[in-house]
Amino acid sequence: MRICRYTENTDAQLGFYYDDHIVPLHTAAKAYNRATESQAALDITTSPISCLPGGESTDAAHAIADWLEEHHAERVALQIPTDSVTLLAPLADPPKILLLAGNYASHLEEEGRIALEKEETFPYVFMKPRTTINHPNAPITIPAMSPDFIDYECELAIVIGKTAKNVSESDALDYVAGYTVVNDISDRKYQPVPNRKERDRDAFFDWQHGKWHDGFFPFGPAIASTQTITDPNTLELELSVNGEVRQQTNTDHMIYGVPAVIEFISRSVTLEPGDIIATGTTAGTGHALGKLLRDGDQMSATIEGIGTLNNYMVSES
Amino acid sequence: MRICRYTENTDAQLGFYYDDHIVPLHTAAKAYNRATESQAALDITTSPISCLPGGESTDAAHAIADWLEEHHAERVALQIPTDSVTLLAPLADPPKILLLAGNYASHLEEEGRIALEKEETFPYVFMKPRTTINHPNAPITIPAMSPDFIDYECELAIVIGKTAKNVSESDALDYVAGYTVVNDISDRKYQPVPNRKERDRDAFFDWQHGKWHDGFFPFGPAIASTQTITDPNTLELELSVNGEVRQQTNTDHMIYGVPAVIEFISRSVTLEPGDIIATGTTAGTGHALGKLLRDGDQMSATIEGIGTLNNYMVSES
Repeated sequence: MRICRYTENTDAQLGFYYDDHIVPLHTAAKAYNRATESQAALDITTSPISCLPGGESTDAAHAIADWLEEHHAERVALQIPTDSVTLLAPLADPPKILLLAGNYASHLEEEGRIALEKEETFPYVFMKPRTTINHPNAPITIPAMSPDFIDYECELAIVIGKTAKNVSESDALDYVAGYTVVNDISDRKYQPVPNRKERDRDAFFDWQHGKWHDGFFPFGPAIASTQTITDPNTLELELSVNGEVRQQTNTDHMIYGVPAVIEFISRSVTLEPGDIIATGTTAGTGHALGKLLRDGDQMSATIEGIGTLNNYMVSES
Repeated sequence: MRICRYTENTDAQLGFYYDDHIVPLHTAAKAYNRATESQAALDITTSPISCLPGGESTDAAHAIADWLEEHHAERVALQIPTDSVTLLAPLADPPKILLLAGNYASHLEEEGRIALEKEETFPYVFMKPRTTINHPNAPITIPAMSPDFIDYECELAIVIGKTAKNVSESDALDYVAGYTVVNDISDRKYQPVPNRKERDRDAFFDWQHGKWHDGFFPFGPAIASTQTITDPNTLELELSVNGEVRQQTNTDHMIYGVPAVIEFISRSVTLEPGDIIATGTTAGTGHALGKLLRDGDQMSATIEGIGTLNNYMVSES
């Protein structure tokens, strides 16, 4: 089961996601209730989190999704083309946006950094502000102050479904609602005071501030339930720019797999339903290839079992 | 005018704050309307932001606060002792929690770092997750993993009242709702994998992760309106532990004053109503003095014109 958020010039709606088509949750729930003479109590007015594992309506949502899989004619009758609606980021306002810096050896090596085994080090976690949230198919603005240094990073993201504190690696997946695709956009040379005198922590804060421009955190197109993706560390991942493949890997190459990431963060930080954790990127960034993003560039970030997140670049006017 | 949030075993309420007493906004609004035969439309059910500059009810709230100042007998009749209620963090859920690392030369110097003039460098900004939010008079838990390295930092915090992007220093204060007191709690030696092999960015991520433990961002006791504090860079600031003064300065010693901080951040990040920005700390941290926090320690953080934020430390059981 995959859940998306969308609008048809109305309030945001939830839908079951099938790449080229979506089925609105509210029409699907009505059809299911009529056909099965049941009263699946599906809260269609709130966040996708309520429909995913850990949420109040998860059993009803999965029952309807299963019914749609089994009744193809009914699904076809209910579906609408995805390109007739405006997809939205599948979470309106995640309580926390957390990301890993460097979780694939190949990316660390292309940046000239050291990649260690999991047991020898720890995950580097950082945050993005909510003003970075951006939507599938939406433009991403290249800031006028940094026209030549904007980069992509395709990442698998965890969506938390249940409050998690001090969770062990072996229990960690019980706290996950599902997975989505993130394109972690970076300004690789954010230097607001170019003629400054260098201080020892300048490089770090340049790097971090360069992640925070408005709209630099597109995600979607949907959240795939943990009932559909039972092992998040077996997924093919690919990002292309204007049709040229730049990043390609399998999530089994993560240094810290999904369970280890949750164990690490939840030791000090309580994870909450709707929190999103992007799990780091692989080799092939524009920075390493000398191919940074330009006005008009079209990006497609795909992860197996979730879908394709498309975005395009526009220069700040 | 100062606004606090509190509970008397009910939903959160707003109050006018007078240190030892508070006056509930809803009873004050009723008394004011009766006395002046007006219909001050005061939205008392939502965030303090609506009552502060930039908010919908700011004129009504300030009119009532002025009336209470001028009618002492009426205020005394309405007031209740502050210690009879439970004060809450004056914002329930700030969209963003931003903080400055190193904004007073004296603190940078006590840490062996270089303090430069404003023109030669830039502010170091970082974030805390919302799970760090904590309340006046509330306990702060010393994590079992770091019993000996927990520290305080008293800071003036800006509360944003109006959406701000690309705001110049000269206009910046127009976007501020008010000011509050923050105690930025840190774990100075967060090293989750003690026997790791060192990597070049370990120290930075240790420092950042050590700011993120649950409950490490107490703030309050109230928000002072920008109509009351017209110049935020003239305020006396003091933090004591168990009655011993540890930090003492005036906010005129900030390297980046409040307007410069807003200009810098709003160049890349849209600031939103309710965002909170802690503006850095002065010398006298426990780390520098060799006096880190212990179970039972009582902290009082006071800023002129705002009030005193009290908290105490408890060991994790």
